[in-house]
Amino acid sequence: MYLDHTSAVPVDERVVGFASRYLIHDFGNPSSLHSVGLEAKRGLEDARGKVKELINAESPATIIFTGSATESNNLAIRGTALRNKKAGTKVVSSAIEHISVLNPMKELQKRGYTYDVVPVSAEGFVDIDVLAETVTRDTVVTSINYANDEIGTIERIREISRIVHENGQYLHVNATAAAGRIPVDVQKDGIDLLTLSSNDMYGPRGAAALYVREGVKVQTLLPGGGQERGLRSGTENIFAIAGMGEAAAIAGQEMASEGPRLRKIADAYLREILTIEDAHLTGPPAGRLPGHLSFRFDRIEGESILLNLDTAFGIQVTTGSACSSRTLEPSHVLLAIGLKHEEAHGSMIMMPGRSNTLEEIPYVVDAVRKTVERLRLITAM
Amino acid sequence: MYLDHTSAVPVDERVVGFASRYLIHDFGNPSSLHSVGLEAKRGLEDARGKVKELINAESPATIIFTGSATESNNLAIRGTALRNKKAGTKVVSSAIEHISVLNPMKELQKRGYTYDVVPVSAEGFVDIDVLAETVTRDTVVTSINYANDEIGTIERIREISRIVHENGQYLHVNATAAAGRIPVDVQKDGIDLLTLSSNDMYGPRGAAALYVREGVKVQTLLPGGGQERGLRSGTENIFAIAGMGEAAAIAGQEMASEGPRLRKIADAYLREILTIEDAHLTGPPAGRLPGHLSFRFDRIEGESILLNLDTAFGIQVTTGSACSSRTLEPSHVLLAIGLKHEEAHGSMIMMPGRSNTLEEIPYVVDAVRKTVERLRLITAM
Repeated sequence: MYLDHTSAVPVDERVVGFASRYLIHDFGNPSSLHSVGLEAKRGLEDARGKVKELINAESPATIIFTGSATESNNLAIRGTALRNKKAGTKVVSSAIEHISVLNPMKELQKRGYTYDVVPVSAEGFVDIDVLAETVTRDTVVTSINYANDEIGTIERIREISRIVHENGQYLHVNATAAAGRIPVDVQKDGIDLLTLSSNDMYGPRGAAALYVREGVKVQTLLPGGGQERGLRSGTENIFAIAGMGEAAAIAGQEMASEGPRLRKIADAYLREILTIEDAHLTGPPAGRLPGHLSFRFDRIEGESILLNLDTAFGIQVTTGSACSSRTLEPSHVLLAIGLKHEEAHGSMIMMPGRSNTLEEIPYVVDAVRKTVERLRLITAM
Repeated sequence: MYLDHTSAVPVDERVVGFASRYLIHDFGNPSSLHSVGLEAKRGLEDARGKVKELINAESPATIIFTGSATESNNLAIRGTALRNKKAGTKVVSSAIEHISVLNPMKELQKRGYTYDVVPVSAEGFVDIDVLAETVTRDTVVTSINYANDEIGTIERIREISRIVHENGQYLHVNATAAAGRIPVDVQKDGIDLLTLSSNDMYGPRGAAALYVREGVKVQTLLPGGGQERGLRSGTENIFAIAGMGEAAAIAGQEMASEGPRLRKIADAYLREILTIEDAHLTGPPAGRLPGHLSFRFDRIEGESILLNLDTAFGIQVTTGSACSSRTLEPSHVLLAIGLKHEEAHGSMIMMPGRSNTLEEIPYVVDAVRKTVERLRLITAM
């Protein structure tokens, strides 16, 4: 029973059905001038239009396809900072950004940029007052996640946008966890650069996008054939891109029904799991991603919970930062919301997805309860 | 009838059959510690082993998966030059490298590196004497393609390796067009860094590899979660990577039979097409990629040939540099082998692949002949 949709998501069968023709039949290079190339080009532009729709971008030309959310984040942060050096050499992020935001920031720091980190509340909300003090005229890029994949917090992006634009230059928003799950509107939200991931929307890996508001100048990080308006060279991965487009369309259509369904599942889990002794919710009780559940249990390790649930019950969850969970370091997100090292180690993240149901809950809750009790017994020995 | 396997290649159905389980069932994040993640991790390492085999690398750890050949070339050239700045700030390539090699070189030049270009013969072979003079102790990266995708020339890599290592530091070889088509042996060939593309081997786009010889230090261009030994962050695209591995295995098994079959087809085409008035072969008559055919026709445009063959005969070929064929500039490769601008414009590249047969030849040759005659008639009017 897979409950780890923050780490990886299966591709929706409808997406596979839609996009697989681009593997064997319409596999052309969109730069080729013949009919096979033009068919691929058509698929590429169709996908661009669908992604534009999902986030209400002003035009398809604002959507740049890349190979991964990591690449989109790098392009948004390093590409924009390097291209707009004259506007300032300061960059800012919150303390709970994804590692593919934090590390590009640190890379800029090595190159002489000033990098400031804005703290968050105990529920993961960016401290608006500190943000207003930190972002100054020479702050060229401020990067804040739309929603946090570890503790589920949905940031107040419109307020953040107002403050960033009153004081500094460009706002980059990593919407990897949010896009396709909750409404994202780059125009109403006031976003200059936005990262979207295909796989988080049940599309294939190998595609992601960066929304670049008209007029924002970005420097490429991958010089080459000049595809994607010169911002991302390399023959377009049309299977993954077409799949991402279709995934965006499906997510847009089903968000209004799927969101409440996942919230209902999460609420039921929450009620049950918090009855386990010394179990705590991390992140906010309200204002979270639909379906997102993050807990911590006193006196046991998240890693042990994960392994026991997997081997003894066939249930997959995650702990700490999904993408670097092999490192065994405590999550920087949990430390940033004020947890102690030992508290941060006891984290368990569950993220039900399209295939999960209310009916599974009793089995999963029972497994979690037994796992926690068993691990505490071992620890106490 | 698709004869444009330099621009894009359909994914082999056996590859799709092998890898598609990684889309819906074994879609896990290889960094996840649970069974679904471990299954993906197993697929990842299986693919690494298969790619290692194809190029006879010393260990699987030398294979770094990236998202595209463009990315591999950037990582090899910029990543190695930036990381080994103390060893020298000079870079060298031949004049007929792919644009995803040339542009990273020019990017380094902007950052203060010296970039020297070595000329090639009229058949596209790197001028060994000039190479020996150009590469000096402070030449940190020399980049030469294993085979050229526009004129088919297979470079004398072992001789080039000897010279580069006598005089300079690291040899990068872009084997995008060669790997899977002809034997590549990084140890016997004496290669430090080698780019391989999945799609050119009938694998899915979205995966490529960079072989990094043990001991060669490279700086990442994509900071983030630290996947691929810290050299390429981003959740691994396991579908594309597993597909690339299987594609490499199939190519390795079938090279000994498929190579001669393609050579036979190409020889037959060559005999027939050169009977057309004022038709010329570009690149060498011998020492070319199996199946690779490149021509030029006096007094007509390659673009017009391409369009007429496509619309009137349903045959897809390409002209000039495949990846930037929308630019309409004459190919830098054809200029480098000494053609005049007007000669370079008349180029047509045909690259039969696995699906093509000897039986197609009369139809295609007749179509080319009629196309050339018709275009010359129009031009003469």
